[in-house]
Amino acid sequence: MEFEKDLKILIVGLGLIGGSYARALKKRGNPVYAVTRSPETIEYALKKGWIDDGGTSPEAPYVSEADVVVFALYPHVFVDWIEKYQRFLKPGAILTDVTGVKGTLVEEIGKILRPDVEFIAAHPMAGRELSGIEHATDRIFRGANYIVVPTDKNTPRAVELCKALGKALGFADISVLSPAEHDDMIAFLSQLTHCIAVSLMCTSDDPKISHYTGNSFRDLTRIARLNDEMWSELFLCNRKALLGQMDAFRAAFDKLYGTIQSGDRETMREMMRLSTARRIGFDQEERKETV
Amino acid sequence: MEFEKDLKILIVGLGLIGGSYARALKKRGNPVYAVTRSPETIEYALKKGWIDDGGTSPEAPYVSEADVVVFALYPHVFVDWIEKYQRFLKPGAILTDVTGVKGTLVEEIGKILRPDVEFIAAHPMAGRELSGIEHATDRIFRGANYIVVPTDKNTPRAVELCKALGKALGFADISVLSPAEHDDMIAFLSQLTHCIAVSLMCTSDDPKISHYTGNSFRDLTRIARLNDEMWSELFLCNRKALLGQMDAFRAAFDKLYGTIQSGDRETMREMMRLSTARRIGFDQEERKETV
Repeated sequence: MEFEKDLKILIVGLGLIGGSYARALKKRGNPVYAVTRSPETIEYALKKGWIDDGGTSPEAPYVSEADVVVFALYPHVFVDWIEKYQRFLKPGAILTDVTGVKGTLVEEIGKILRPDVEFIAAHPMAGRELSGIEHATDRIFRGANYIVVPTDKNTPRAVELCKALGKALGFADISVLSPAEHDDMIAFLSQLTHCIAVSLMCTSDDPKISHYTGNSFRDLTRIARLNDEMWSELFLCNRKALLGQMDAFRAAFDKLYGTIQSGDRETMREMMRLSTARRIGFDQEERKETV
Repeated sequence: MEFEKDLKILIVGLGLIGGSYARALKKRGNPVYAVTRSPETIEYALKKGWIDDGGTSPEAPYVSEADVVVFALYPHVFVDWIEKYQRFLKPGAILTDVTGVKGTLVEEIGKILRPDVEFIAAHPMAGRELSGIEHATDRIFRGANYIVVPTDKNTPRAVELCKALGKALGFADISVLSPAEHDDMIAFLSQLTHCIAVSLMCTSDDPKISHYTGNSFRDLTRIARLNDEMWSELFLCNRKALLGQMDAFRAAFDKLYGTIQSGDRETMREMMRLSTARRIGFDQEERKETV
């Protein structure tokens, strides 16, 4: 399915990701509108030519005429918005989101959503260490993964439309996962890695360290610069899966610790060889993907 | 002090780092010689023009004439070499190394070294995920840190010569640390990060993961591809400092775990803000360095 160029898009929440969606879709030729908290953000996006119109109120013609509505909000703000303003949406509208955790969110939205609109969850695995519309760029989507996260309530049409949206945005790899599969994967690949980076950054307060950092420390802490409001919410929304992955990591870390403590060089080297083999497999996968 | 261009350099061990030293010093104009295990390596380096002469035996004129000898070997191989072959070195020769751990090594070498040569330890904080002379390149030194690690037995002249060598190789930042300071810093910045990367890579065996990795997982596991023979030796040489840093990391990780488990969002956000502030400080330091 092609993502039709005459579909009217409404972005709710013009931050880094919402703004990047607007840029990408406008560049492509779709009419793009936005509702966001601050009038300055709308002004900025209008001046840049990233949206056709927008405002701070959901009571606007471009809200009631939108075919596809993208929610780029914190989970609890998204749920609030639906509760308060879904009455302004067009019957038949397709709603999607960019939220990093799905299970609890999909359930909550499912409970309150009007029956004549459809919500199909999606997770664009792209971002930057910076936030706000002024850092929005559709370059972050290139080469990245886009995951459609349907439930058994979703229609095949909405799933296909959501996939087509991912392609239209410029994502390299579009895939489909269930909410539980998605949240487990995210707990491991994204949340656990952020937990590690934050913990590592909190491990030492020696100010001289930055004089000696090699690339390894820089790599491991790049993501330690994060939006605490958003990430703490995402961690708590995915508490069970995240704690499970943290337990699994700690078990591996403790095993390695034990080999160093006891001088069990053979087991240590086995872990290193496993790690090396898996990482080489990764590099090969990556090469295949970029071909 | 300038690193004089007529100083004759001998590299013992022509791997990735030894080979990169040879390339950098030869390019600069110094006479460069090498002793290494395999004749093919010598042949390769000669063909590339990275050395003037070399061989597999320490009984050679370029060994007994070298002014500066760089040992680019595993710690225990370095100690063995000194024991067996130091009699071939020129009186007054300055010996240095590239080893990633200093305390135990400096002590062992100190015990056995001839009194008429001087060993000044150094740690070039540069490397690649690949090993072997065919991956040698002096590009890895640019922008990197070079640490001179003297003891109170070292002469000021040897310390200055070693600093000058770091500059001649192209390192951006030359500094001086004691063996204990160095080993603590390395335990934290380099060994702990490698422990984390290996543990993370050993946490999950799901082959589908590579389809979904975002940049964060790729960044955290880049160094998970490592030479198990070398790293296991370095870990065990620095056991005490490394276990101390692993304990410190685990304390921070466990604290974060606790905040997720109990839903203590305020403490979680405090850790994230601390982590963010420190990482921003880092980025600023880095910018200053590159100006």
